[in-house]
Amino acid sequence: MSASKKIQAAIERSSWIRKMFEEGNIRKKKYGAENVFDFSLGNPNLEPPAKFKQVLKELADDPEPGQHGYMPNAGFETTRKAVADYLSGYNRPIFSADDVVMTVGAGGGLNVVLKTILNPGEEVIIPKPYFVEYNFYLDNHQGVPKVVATGPGFSLDMGAIEGAINEKTRAVLIDSPNNPTGKVYTEGELEALGKLLTDYSRKFGQPIYLVSDEPYRKIIYDGITVPSIFDAYNESFVVTSFSKDLSLPGERIGYAACNHDISDRGTIIAGMVLCNRILGFVSAPALMQRAVALLLEEAVDVSLYQKKRDLLCDGLQACGYEFVKPRGAFYLFPRTPIEDDVAFVAALQEENILTVPGSGFGGPGHMRIAYCVSDDTIVNALPGFERVIKKFKK
Amino acid sequence: MSASKKIQAAIERSSWIRKMFEEGNIRKKKYGAENVFDFSLGNPNLEPPAKFKQVLKELADDPEPGQHGYMPNAGFETTRKAVADYLSGYNRPIFSADDVVMTVGAGGGLNVVLKTILNPGEEVIIPKPYFVEYNFYLDNHQGVPKVVATGPGFSLDMGAIEGAINEKTRAVLIDSPNNPTGKVYTEGELEALGKLLTDYSRKFGQPIYLVSDEPYRKIIYDGITVPSIFDAYNESFVVTSFSKDLSLPGERIGYAACNHDISDRGTIIAGMVLCNRILGFVSAPALMQRAVALLLEEAVDVSLYQKKRDLLCDGLQACGYEFVKPRGAFYLFPRTPIEDDVAFVAALQEENILTVPGSGFGGPGHMRIAYCVSDDTIVNALPGFERVIKKFKK
Repeated sequence: MSASKKIQAAIERSSWIRKMFEEGNIRKKKYGAENVFDFSLGNPNLEPPAKFKQVLKELADDPEPGQHGYMPNAGFETTRKAVADYLSGYNRPIFSADDVVMTVGAGGGLNVVLKTILNPGEEVIIPKPYFVEYNFYLDNHQGVPKVVATGPGFSLDMGAIEGAINEKTRAVLIDSPNNPTGKVYTEGELEALGKLLTDYSRKFGQPIYLVSDEPYRKIIYDGITVPSIFDAYNESFVVTSFSKDLSLPGERIGYAACNHDISDRGTIIAGMVLCNRILGFVSAPALMQRAVALLLEEAVDVSLYQKKRDLLCDGLQACGYEFVKPRGAFYLFPRTPIEDDVAFVAALQEENILTVPGSGFGGPGHMRIAYCVSDDTIVNALPGFERVIKKFKK
Repeated sequence: MSASKKIQAAIERSSWIRKMFEEGNIRKKKYGAENVFDFSLGNPNLEPPAKFKQVLKELADDPEPGQHGYMPNAGFETTRKAVADYLSGYNRPIFSADDVVMTVGAGGGLNVVLKTILNPGEEVIIPKPYFVEYNFYLDNHQGVPKVVATGPGFSLDMGAIEGAINEKTRAVLIDSPNNPTGKVYTEGELEALGKLLTDYSRKFGQPIYLVSDEPYRKIIYDGITVPSIFDAYNESFVVTSFSKDLSLPGERIGYAACNHDISDRGTIIAGMVLCNRILGFVSAPALMQRAVALLLEEAVDVSLYQKKRDLLCDGLQACGYEFVKPRGAFYLFPRTPIEDDVAFVAALQEENILTVPGSGFGGPGHMRIAYCVSDDTIVNALPGFERVIKKFKK
């Protein structure tokens, strides 16, 4: 044996997804990258905002002593204070720098929060469909996912969530705006969820936490706003990154924040800081911490993503695809016209259109289309989308 | 309960170390930072080399499209190829880009390697004294540390290592140049270790891996070189970072490399790439990957650290401290004149000298002095070191 049993099994399980990506790469080589329509990855196609480039130049031109050195594991005090002030601006609680831990992206932040709270075997409720990396993140800390159904339009189903709660339930993990559906949970949904978790936390004599993964908070359309998790429930964490709103996914910069009114706040904060260290992150990257502190109000031009959404939704609707029009993020999650989403995605691939089967997100019978691509890619892929649906809907 | 049981216990265990740091901070506020001699942290006091600043400016001034975007989880191909060529330059095996995974520092790299190879309950042999974070890193993946004694001058004790090997042994983890002792393992020691592990791998029918943590490889003195782990043993990994040689500890950039001749190389590499992703790192920070690819032959001026070592060693020897003179890294690990190293370190603190008890590294009866500080800090602390040893050696 070389790799551990668990890792060997994970490599084998993920091999069909890898095969798909490899098939995509073969097609790009064969037909030219411009003739392959790659909707498979959530890699933003917009460059970072001009102000980011300016801030980065200033930091590079005029470095402070120790700019690249160690700082407290939680991150630079100035950055955490800036994030706390930003959070205080749109949530009811008033945050302090201590409530914020700068992390290696949202992936790092989720692992920090999950390791802080999870005892082995404890359960985390996740509404489906969901970002499938959560399974790995839970398993890293011996947590157990309890995947529950959602209601119409991928709304939270309180009955399904309540049905999954038991004495082993440690947290509910949500993602809003959602990957892969683009669903934004409403204030009413969050209030109902907060009330439900308050009741059961009281019943069991310890908090059931609400963890919200929010890297798409600023990627929203039609003038809506994303309601506050912190206002809806005290025993809550928000994890986010600057990967999508500043188009910096490769830089691995984000943060985890606990509610300022969370129970036993001192222990929770000490736990998060300790976990950031001992998971091997040690801290978030120093230079990017300096940069984002000056860019909290910035974002890429979201209207460009809205235009892409509309191009894609109008085009797919015209040829008969069924979907819930997303209000945020840059994913569309249509029904596949046949039950077998893997087969349908394979048929799209024959048209050089790369998408991901919904099965990969706990949502079989669907596919995920990541539309963070050029407008041309969308427009030029539409005839292929139409040919394939016609083949199956005779 | 708020934080998990394990994390609560870790917070409590680490509270005396935190207390020491807090006491140090109180002293800095009370007496002025310039009057407190802080030898407690391995935070390099040298700024990054001039060429790093130039490279960073060029990257900031003239960004490539997608410079801050996602790349394959293993890292940019160009960076991995550059590292592979660098490794091929001083090791017998010829490396390819695939053998290299760019990581969030050495802390990230160690967790990637350990998660790749460890099944729950498997053991990792660690010669003491050792970097105490290894305990956490093993526990993250349900591995079990088997700490073994070292011989004279902190040399590898083959008898002790052989005595600890059993069917559950999955790896030996070494750190050379060593934190906290500065010991550099010799070619002879590594060859003997390689031979021992070859024998037992054959006996048990599966490899016992050698994992070498080498962030101090370039911080060496007296014209020595650090022998190659890859030459000594095929079933080996090297994990390192640019934290110390480029003075970038806050930027979290390093790499893990497997021996090009490792058994079952394809699975090992796939496992490392998968673990980099699922542990929440996703990838190493993009901008720093671009930078270090151009800086593999660079380092801070190591002669400055050698001067600090000599200042400290000469000064402490003159007043009666006993130690093995280190050949690398920037730590000295003297015997404390009394058995109770915690008490001795507390007495030094009374003189505003901050060090760390050897007990924190599995080496009671010693203390660690991190001499990556200004020359003045060393010179001005020597009278205090002398007063304290005189108090105990009457």
